[in-house]
Amino acid sequence: MLGQKLAHRISTQETFGADAQLLLFDLSFPLDSAPGKKIVGNLTASGIAKSVAAQRPDVIFHLAAIVSGQAEKDFALGWDVNLMATWALLNALKDEHEASGGEYTPRLVFASSIAVFGSPFPEKLSDEFLSAPLTSYGAQKAASELMITDFSRKGYLDGTSLRLPTLCVRPGKANAAASSFFSCIIREPLNRNEAVLPVAETVRHWHASPRAAATFLTHAATMDTQLLNYRRALNMPGVSCTVAEQIEALRDVAGQDAVGLIRREPDEAIERIVKNWPRDFQTDRALELGFKAESSFDEIIQVYLEDDFRL
Amino acid sequence: MLGQKLAHRISTQETFGADAQLLLFDLSFPLDSAPGKKIVGNLTASGIAKSVAAQRPDVIFHLAAIVSGQAEKDFALGWDVNLMATWALLNALKDEHEASGGEYTPRLVFASSIAVFGSPFPEKLSDEFLSAPLTSYGAQKAASELMITDFSRKGYLDGTSLRLPTLCVRPGKANAAASSFFSCIIREPLNRNEAVLPVAETVRHWHASPRAAATFLTHAATMDTQLLNYRRALNMPGVSCTVAEQIEALRDVAGQDAVGLIRREPDEAIERIVKNWPRDFQTDRALELGFKAESSFDEIIQVYLEDDFRL
Repeated sequence: MLGQKLAHRISTQETFGADAQLLLFDLSFPLDSAPGKKIVGNLTASGIAKSVAAQRPDVIFHLAAIVSGQAEKDFALGWDVNLMATWALLNALKDEHEASGGEYTPRLVFASSIAVFGSPFPEKLSDEFLSAPLTSYGAQKAASELMITDFSRKGYLDGTSLRLPTLCVRPGKANAAASSFFSCIIREPLNRNEAVLPVAETVRHWHASPRAAATFLTHAATMDTQLLNYRRALNMPGVSCTVAEQIEALRDVAGQDAVGLIRREPDEAIERIVKNWPRDFQTDRALELGFKAESSFDEIIQVYLEDDFRL
Repeated sequence: MLGQKLAHRISTQETFGADAQLLLFDLSFPLDSAPGKKIVGNLTASGIAKSVAAQRPDVIFHLAAIVSGQAEKDFALGWDVNLMATWALLNALKDEHEASGGEYTPRLVFASSIAVFGSPFPEKLSDEFLSAPLTSYGAQKAASELMITDFSRKGYLDGTSLRLPTLCVRPGKANAAASSFFSCIIREPLNRNEAVLPVAETVRHWHASPRAAATFLTHAATMDTQLLNYRRALNMPGVSCTVAEQIEALRDVAGQDAVGLIRREPDEAIERIVKNWPRDFQTDRALELGFKAESSFDEIIQVYLEDDFRL
């Protein structure tokens, strides 16, 4: 989803100039895929990272991942895709760097996640809060960050890792992620469907729109990485709000009828998972570096209506 | 060095009972090696981790590593030994766990390092200070910690990572590590040899004796890991002192003649590296869990005299 948003953004906004070429690599592509050269493949397959790197892209957005729920169910697959494919990609880029006599030093932007953090938390996480993940997905993202920082420190590439907030409002269908409901309770009522709320309205979480996430990625691709000073994993800005505040924002936009479509159906398993998620961040570094998110949940809904809503 | 200290300690102190069997795995063994079954091999070689795991040891001390200076020089070798061999070992143990129907869940104690931390630092690092390493060695240790914590969370094994202070006074010859002088300026004068001090006397650092490190490892092998609560990487206690304080401790033990053997020879390269090392820690968690280090540098010298000094 984010990859397609990003590709559409790059192809329409000319972030990298009018003659920039887009090379898309994925397991498969949707029908309404962004324009650009497409390669279908699996990054974990032997030799694939090497053949992608051999194209010597100037900027690489590495978003390939097994989602959190699946990485928890299929342990080997999660580590293979979320860490070992990153490892293969980094080494393939390093090989190109060396083959070019040091000329080729690509910019790499890695989609990390706030899943690198695990409870216990303070109410608000600072830029210096430790990575102590409580999921395999979080551990794999945190280990990838360490690799990217070290390959960058050695000058083989110029990488950053962006710890994205939960993306909301996600378009399309609900998925298996435990965080899916944060989007469902907004998207489904706006589309006149029922939505299930499995947690208490007091639950507070950290959100940004898919559009904001795409701008984080392009900003990281063009920013001055000298300013990062070896700390190349950045907590991205976002909006901290409770489920009650999300629902109030929905009421502002779509009225009580929409809100009435949210059905409370407490789910202890989801409550337990969500309890271990961060609630709020103080993202001074990212803000100083020019990353911008929405400033309210109302604005996040507005972005969904502008970018993805088709009744 | 630490592996041999640990093996001698286990074989003489009956930490694991009188009938415990010691299985030593290394690239080679010194002549005065501790007793026990010895396997010579390279943990990075294909299938080796599997054959070690197949012995189903109850407790595994994983100390195998390329040292910091060498990992910085040979990037590929460092990642291979310091991370990928850990990965192979963890997977081999997981395979045994699964083959046993979940019966076999070994205790794993991993020698991590304060190299997982990178500047800028507060004067004193808390148990919650982030891992932002500035060396490949530190990144490899930090990534290994993430794996060990995740394999443990999933119940495949029962692992802890101990972030050891700089070991001082190391017996034997000086090595290539940038930290080597911390031991040299004590050991060499005690042995009536000259020693070179490459940094200012105001440099403050974090030390523990090799004996203390061996007791950390055995304590971690027998402690109640339920108390760790998913944060399985622990900062070990130690002694924070300046080089000037080290020299004063040497004077107390061996007099001005010994101190006179220390030759000041500032080395900018070493100064630059050491500047990025932590100076002091507040290790509340480890102390509460029963880990104990020396309480002064005088005591650290005393341990060297008792354990390793032979004039």
